[in-house]
Amino acid sequence: MNAVGSVAAACTTVSFVPQLMRVWQRKSPRDISLSMFLLFSFGVACWLVYGVGIRSGPVIAANAITLLLALAILALKVRYDRRS
Amino acid sequence: MNAVGSVAAACTTVSFVPQLMRVWQRKSPRDISLSMFLLFSFGVACWLVYGVGIRSGPVIAANAITLLLALAILALKVRYDRRS
Repeated sequence: MNAVGSVAAACTTVSFVPQLMRVWQRKSPRDISLSMFLLFSFGVACWLVYGVGIRSGPVIAANAITLLLALAILALKVRYDRRS
Repeated sequence: MNAVGSVAAACTTVSFVPQLMRVWQRKSPRDISLSMFLLFSFGVACWLVYGVGIRSGPVIAANAITLLLALAILALKVRYDRRS
C-alpha cells in the first residue's frame, strides 16, 4: 500500500507542472479559477502544517512541492490578469 | 492535528468546485492543462485505492469527491476543446 501512496503523491504533485508550464507559455490564465488556486494553496499549506505535526516526511515533502507549484500558478494568474 | 488535517482535506477538495463552475459557465477551458487533469485524476484515484487499502474513511471520502470533481472538469475540457 505504501507504493500506491507514493505513486498517488507523485502524480498529484507533479500534475501541477504541466499547468504551470501552460500558463507560463500562453500567458493567458483566464480560464483558471482564482478561487480554486487560493483555496487549494491554503489547503495544501494546512496539509504541510499537518505533516509537520505528525512528523511525516512524505506528507511534508509532497505538500511543500505542491504548494510551491500552486503558488507559482497563482502568482502568474494574478500577474497576467492584471495586464489584460 | 486532526482538525488541521480536516481543514486541509476540506479546502483541497472544495477548491475544485469554483474551477468546475468556471469551466461550466465560460465553456472555455483552453488555459487548463489536459495533462494536469489526467495526471491529477490518476493520482487521486491512487489515493482512493490507498484509502481503501488502509481503511481510512476520511482519505476515501475526500478523494472520492475530489476524483468526481476532477473528472467532471476533465470531461468538460475534452468536450469544449472538441467544439472549438
